[in-house]
Amino acid sequence: MLTKKIVKDIQSLSHKKLRDEVGTFIAEGPKVVAELLASSNARCRTICAEKDWITQNEHLLEKVTAGQVFEIDNHWLERISLLKTPNQVVAVFEKFPLLAKPVLQNKLSLMLDDIQDPGNLGTIIRNADWFGIENIICSKSCADCYNPKVVQSTMGSLARVSVFYKDLISFINEYHSIPVYGAALSGKSVYELEEIKEGIFLFGNESKGIHDEILNLCKFRITIPRFGNAESLNAAVANGIILAQLKRN
Amino acid sequence: MLTKKIVKDIQSLSHKKLRDEVGTFIAEGPKVVAELLASSNARCRTICAEKDWITQNEHLLEKVTAGQVFEIDNHWLERISLLKTPNQVVAVFEKFPLLAKPVLQNKLSLMLDDIQDPGNLGTIIRNADWFGIENIICSKSCADCYNPKVVQSTMGSLARVSVFYKDLISFINEYHSIPVYGAALSGKSVYELEEIKEGIFLFGNESKGIHDEILNLCKFRITIPRFGNAESLNAAVANGIILAQLKRN
Repeated sequence: MLTKKIVKDIQSLSHKKLRDEVGTFIAEGPKVVAELLASSNARCRTICAEKDWITQNEHLLEKVTAGQVFEIDNHWLERISLLKTPNQVVAVFEKFPLLAKPVLQNKLSLMLDDIQDPGNLGTIIRNADWFGIENIICSKSCADCYNPKVVQSTMGSLARVSVFYKDLISFINEYHSIPVYGAALSGKSVYELEEIKEGIFLFGNESKGIHDEILNLCKFRITIPRFGNAESLNAAVANGIILAQLKRN
Repeated sequence: MLTKKIVKDIQSLSHKKLRDEVGTFIAEGPKVVAELLASSNARCRTICAEKDWITQNEHLLEKVTAGQVFEIDNHWLERISLLKTPNQVVAVFEKFPLLAKPVLQNKLSLMLDDIQDPGNLGTIIRNADWFGIENIICSKSCADCYNPKVVQSTMGSLARVSVFYKDLISFINEYHSIPVYGAALSGKSVYELEEIKEGIFLFGNESKGIHDEILNLCKFRITIPRFGNAESLNAAVANGIILAQLKRN
């Protein structure tokens, strides 16, 4: 039976401290929950869902071997949900396991310096998944990838992209053989890049860009040419445009 | 003097009905307000700002010839602001004047079918401004471009892009000489497009895409090739990627 204690435990996962202690996170809504359940490396601990969702998703529920499934009514759903408009199902998953050290040789990877907006981080994870990028290295000041708003905006891609939190300067020094390309307001046009088989593509904070001391470690600076008058592009849009160009080349 | 009546009038602009009646909208924060004030076609009716902002922006305030400027303290700012974190200044502007009929010959334009999320619409307006697109034709079911959340996410670009609300089917029929390119999950790769000098680029709803009856009016379907596993891209990211490719060609 769904108890007040269980509800309180689920809601506590809106706080990073508690997510870190327990090692779990919340996902909501039929689309995101179904994508996560369908992923081979997702482990689901708890599902609270309306009857209709449970009936329609029995095939997915077979995967909840070590967890509990609660059928709840709309009243309980509204109590548990963190969304303004609760949507059929709230689930608790274990955080995804990560390698101790990401393998970045012979592939394209992302690095994020201080991306603050959860929607932007989630959208960048989704971009990475679309363009086949396996690894994202985040500075410790980035939004937490298990923040419920990030989880919602990844649309399930969180299960397919590894997100690491590292000190970026130490990391770049450690992986010194892999060139870092910093996205900036000036530099080589992204239209003129030749084919790149290996590299880390670095994107900075929404308003301040990449910290100077990190930008100085970049081997190349790349930019998206401007044809109109906007001062800048949204961080997730800039990320998508650069990934699309890299994959074209 | 700032009266309760003025505060109430400002706050009423969070509702589309009132914005339509009065013909004004709210903008907040130093960046957005400064960008709008700097635009030649912006007409500001009211500014409520903290002392520091007023001192630092006297050169911009010269443009508020037909409006009122109120110096307010943080307490009043928090009362007036629609933001979670109020930021120095709240301003009321007149909506931007529009031509009766947009001129789309010999240029690239955008069309949006049922874009619901205010953040996505604002980011698409910002993309348009970056890539030098002058006109966006929205279906009447799209978010309102003067919704405060849209205004915030345009970062000032709203002053430089004309946003029209039209019945899309009638509009496409009326402008039948201009080809419409629909962004879809299948079609010609955006990487393979040749140089296009004139066209309307159509983007659909965040989850449902373009309505069938409108997609059927498109002369071409274009798509962004997928290299990984995400089911879709965010609407504003897809828009940015396609604009970047068009401008490359």
